[in-house]
Amino acid sequence: MKKFVQFALLPLMVTASLAAVAAPAAKPEKLIQWRQSAYRVAEWNVARLKAALEGQYDKEEAVAAANALEGIAGSGIESLFVPGTEQGKGWHETSAKPEAFKDTKRFAELSLSFSKEAAELAKLVPAADQSAVKAQFGKVTRTCKTCHDAFKGKD
Amino acid sequence: MKKFVQFALLPLMVTASLAAVAAPAAKPEKLIQWRQSAYRVAEWNVARLKAALEGQYDKEEAVAAANALEGIAGSGIESLFVPGTEQGKGWHETSAKPEAFKDTKRFAELSLSFSKEAAELAKLVPAADQSAVKAQFGKVTRTCKTCHDAFKGKD
Repeated sequence: MKKFVQFALLPLMVTASLAAVAAPAAKPEKLIQWRQSAYRVAEWNVARLKAALEGQYDKEEAVAAANALEGIAGSGIESLFVPGTEQGKGWHETSAKPEAFKDTKRFAELSLSFSKEAAELAKLVPAADQSAVKAQFGKVTRTCKTCHDAFKGKD
Repeated sequence: MKKFVQFALLPLMVTASLAAVAAPAAKPEKLIQWRQSAYRVAEWNVARLKAALEGQYDKEEAVAAANALEGIAGSGIESLFVPGTEQGKGWHETSAKPEAFKDTKRFAELSLSFSKEAAELAKLVPAADQSAVKAQFGKVTRTCKTCHDAFKGKD
């Protein structure tokens, strides 16, 4: 395994948002930590939105969570799944299936769906129409599940 | 130590963005993981921006990174530093100094500076005036350092 993985090797440059010409070189451990961290932050903000929708809806809390989720979803996490990181430990052993490195087109498509639905959610939340927010939140979490089913093994 | 920490106990509700009435209850380990993950994602996106500014500037990459950083910086990470999480392990032992739980007003102020400077950066990046981006990027990283000096011990 190479000690450093250049983002320039990236096989996922199928959309403009994934272009990574100038992105940092980093050790596989760090790349895996970054992607595990990004998904864990998504989990946090999904949990905040779920709690807001199930409890007393707090608009400011929901806005902060939705904006964070939009930023994470649009960050290009999939660009961290580069050759040399199929196995290995970040915070923990990677739970990515081999398919994440093989079917990169599908992975990029599902990542883009997550990004689009999260961006739409962030647009809706400030108006605080809870039924609209709830419906869109469902769309976001379905993109999570679809992608997990395809590309995520057990933690 | 309490097994569950209610966000409702939050002593940091000094700004609207920190209101957390409806936020999820979670175990201390999870709360610490979430905050460690959020700062690690900030590190990733700072690294991407640094690489972009030092190498061949890729606007799409810089936009994705700046938007992610804005989302993270504005997410209210400081709301995860609740009583019961002064010590303990998330991904690793917390590196928060005791001051983060004592001087919550100052911590909230520094977190707000990070959020404001990151939001300004995200506004500037799409225009791709690299000297302006570089100057604003410096302001963002100075907010990181100021807060680390005050509230972060060794990893």
